[in-house]
Amino acid sequence: MARELLILKGDIIFTPMLGEFAIHENSYLVVQCGKVRGIYQMLPQEYQGLGVEDCTGDLIIPGFVDLHTHAAQFMQRGFGLDMELLDWLNHYTFPEEGKFQSTDYAAKVYALFAEELIKQGTTRAAVFGTIHQQSNCLLFQILVRKGIGAYVGKVNMDANCPEFLKENTSESLAATEKLLCEWAGNTLVKPIITPRFAPTSTGTLLAGLGEIAVKYNLPVQSHLAENLSEIAWVRELFPGQREYHNVYDYYNLFGQTPTLMAHCIHLSADAISCMARQQVVAVHCPDSNLNLTSGIMPARKLLQAGVRVGLGSDIGAGHSLSIPEAIVKAIQLSKVNFLRDNSQKPLTLAEGFYLATKGGGSFFGKVGSFEEGYAFDALVIKDRADLGLSLEERLQRFIYTGEPSQIHGRYIAGKKI
Amino acid sequence: MARELLILKGDIIFTPMLGEFAIHENSYLVVQCGKVRGIYQMLPQEYQGLGVEDCTGDLIIPGFVDLHTHAAQFMQRGFGLDMELLDWLNHYTFPEEGKFQSTDYAAKVYALFAEELIKQGTTRAAVFGTIHQQSNCLLFQILVRKGIGAYVGKVNMDANCPEFLKENTSESLAATEKLLCEWAGNTLVKPIITPRFAPTSTGTLLAGLGEIAVKYNLPVQSHLAENLSEIAWVRELFPGQREYHNVYDYYNLFGQTPTLMAHCIHLSADAISCMARQQVVAVHCPDSNLNLTSGIMPARKLLQAGVRVGLGSDIGAGHSLSIPEAIVKAIQLSKVNFLRDNSQKPLTLAEGFYLATKGGGSFFGKVGSFEEGYAFDALVIKDRADLGLSLEERLQRFIYTGEPSQIHGRYIAGKKI
Repeated sequence: MARELLILKGDIIFTPMLGEFAIHENSYLVVQCGKVRGIYQMLPQEYQGLGVEDCTGDLIIPGFVDLHTHAAQFMQRGFGLDMELLDWLNHYTFPEEGKFQSTDYAAKVYALFAEELIKQGTTRAAVFGTIHQQSNCLLFQILVRKGIGAYVGKVNMDANCPEFLKENTSESLAATEKLLCEWAGNTLVKPIITPRFAPTSTGTLLAGLGEIAVKYNLPVQSHLAENLSEIAWVRELFPGQREYHNVYDYYNLFGQTPTLMAHCIHLSADAISCMARQQVVAVHCPDSNLNLTSGIMPARKLLQAGVRVGLGSDIGAGHSLSIPEAIVKAIQLSKVNFLRDNSQKPLTLAEGFYLATKGGGSFFGKVGSFEEGYAFDALVIKDRADLGLSLEERLQRFIYTGEPSQIHGRYIAGKKI
Repeated sequence: MARELLILKGDIIFTPMLGEFAIHENSYLVVQCGKVRGIYQMLPQEYQGLGVEDCTGDLIIPGFVDLHTHAAQFMQRGFGLDMELLDWLNHYTFPEEGKFQSTDYAAKVYALFAEELIKQGTTRAAVFGTIHQQSNCLLFQILVRKGIGAYVGKVNMDANCPEFLKENTSESLAATEKLLCEWAGNTLVKPIITPRFAPTSTGTLLAGLGEIAVKYNLPVQSHLAENLSEIAWVRELFPGQREYHNVYDYYNLFGQTPTLMAHCIHLSADAISCMARQQVVAVHCPDSNLNLTSGIMPARKLLQAGVRVGLGSDIGAGHSLSIPEAIVKAIQLSKVNFLRDNSQKPLTLAEGFYLATKGGGSFFGKVGSFEEGYAFDALVIKDRADLGLSLEERLQRFIYTGEPSQIHGRYIAGKKI
């Protein structure tokens, strides 16, 4: 399927640059071997006579990228949200994650999670599993079967967590290496090194994970500077490191290979410039920022400093897998930041949309845009085209008020799913 | 229908007090002549043998109250949201409202608006129409036909707006009086005096509207202290008044009869205590606060000062008619306020839910609770009861992650709609 030519016709809109829409009304998008070949007002001679998927009047946009989500917290969305991070982890999250000892439970929940990702129009995701080897394999297989593009992380924890989630350090490292060797051959779903966060890791664990990341050139994902109590705790636990990010950096988990850091709310100027220099991607999870009363990520400040930024749902601290909702809330929270500090200009729709597509997509390679050579991850959206709106206004209306049922077509790497 | 006895059985939850849930698992709720008679663990002798609507396993909650919404902005939801208030009014809202000159357009849009209210579980609403007499009558009739409880306001504007929306002052007053006499006999849908806001009103108009309000003992709705430029403008336009709220107060539009004031973001301590003293209801519209970069209403501060507070969707500045979404965002924004000022404790779920039911409902009389004598406005909600959650957790999950399709029954004043 992905090898054949694919031609779609419709109203095409995407963001090749932060804050800039490329708009091709009623145009042809040609895909070859799963990658965008070009966009044409008139179909070139060489493609004429071939079948065209006629989406005239529909929007064709890049699929959404979720750069931070916890598959094992899917059943936990929407409650326990009158608590802050550390209490919420102990009261709700750790007990729920403990259930993934059972592969039956994991199979059920991970299937629901994957279906919801697809329903919401997410085509690529960076996903946390749990510590449980068998259940992580199921998660991996389910995502492969569904055709979703993903990085999947086996979570590592060997300190400061309930006994039922605490791993033996060397077993944790061995399990990680075993899994990633098993998963190495895949193209769409791939492994990612995933220490939960510094507080639930010994230095030995972090050192071992950094070694594996570098040895196999594997990407890394974790959490950074979400909550003030968490930051104080990291300072106690790692007194030899100046700041939170230095802990990861010391152990080769901060840009030595491609790295995602969720939250990045309370960062010093030093930390921000280190992220920019080492190309660490900051993942903005607006619902989670608010639900756990963590603070608000200063997205504009990070962008201005040259940090790469993407969006994440962060379920269950976030309550929805919808990336359009994350775009709206990222824009809304940027307005809150602006009200406090008018040097932090609000994000525009075109900026929010970029973060959710090409911004996050860049972690997966050429993903999140319709420029030539990009993987064709796309959504076809039916909207009421009866109002004389511009494409930009129609996109804005879909992002703010749309429903998953309006998504009539989904493509990942050129394959219709 | 409303005169008969109605008995429902299910999992009943409501908030008789700010922040306090009343929970009746698997209980009977008896309604007589449209009003709650009582809630019973076992059905009393006198009701036995009567038909029971069996909603075992479902949640039964009060219907949602939307205290501030613009029916004529329904088609405008979700775009134009990269602007602030005054630009947004001129570029999007006024041109859209101009279309309500046409009763055909009004009939179409108001029907969609009313259907969406019902879909989202809103059972009572305070609604702005436009200046257009015929279209306002249609709005009134459509809401009556749908069985929704509402206050409907003919908008008055005679200054600082485009010519096509500017009324002649005495004609505006005469039209207002004519409409309210026509609508006087209704029980569920009633008129409300509705100057758009101070800047689009002359003193003469405000004086006349205040007179009508007092003469007929009619409630009032308007906007207050949404945006800093708006406030500066009011100061220019009404140099004789100390503050924005004094303008309304001077003209008998600030608690002389029951009054709703939307937004109330930037208020002095004087203004807040005046609101509390005069029992003016502040309507918190969180999405609108953010979308138009207006600021954040200090809900906790107003509640602590004894101001009555309800929630509003404020479409089209808000982008959704969903009151559950307004609850979530009111809670989220209260957390932002708390992060800046830890004397403003975040709203809990039970507080947010109260604002959306009994808090706002109190403007309609005994509405928004299941205490004896309250109008039976209710929603029956199907949720997955398979998780061993408490009723409170189930309600929280519905508020955060629920969908309108889960609402399987809707009652307004005892009538199933």
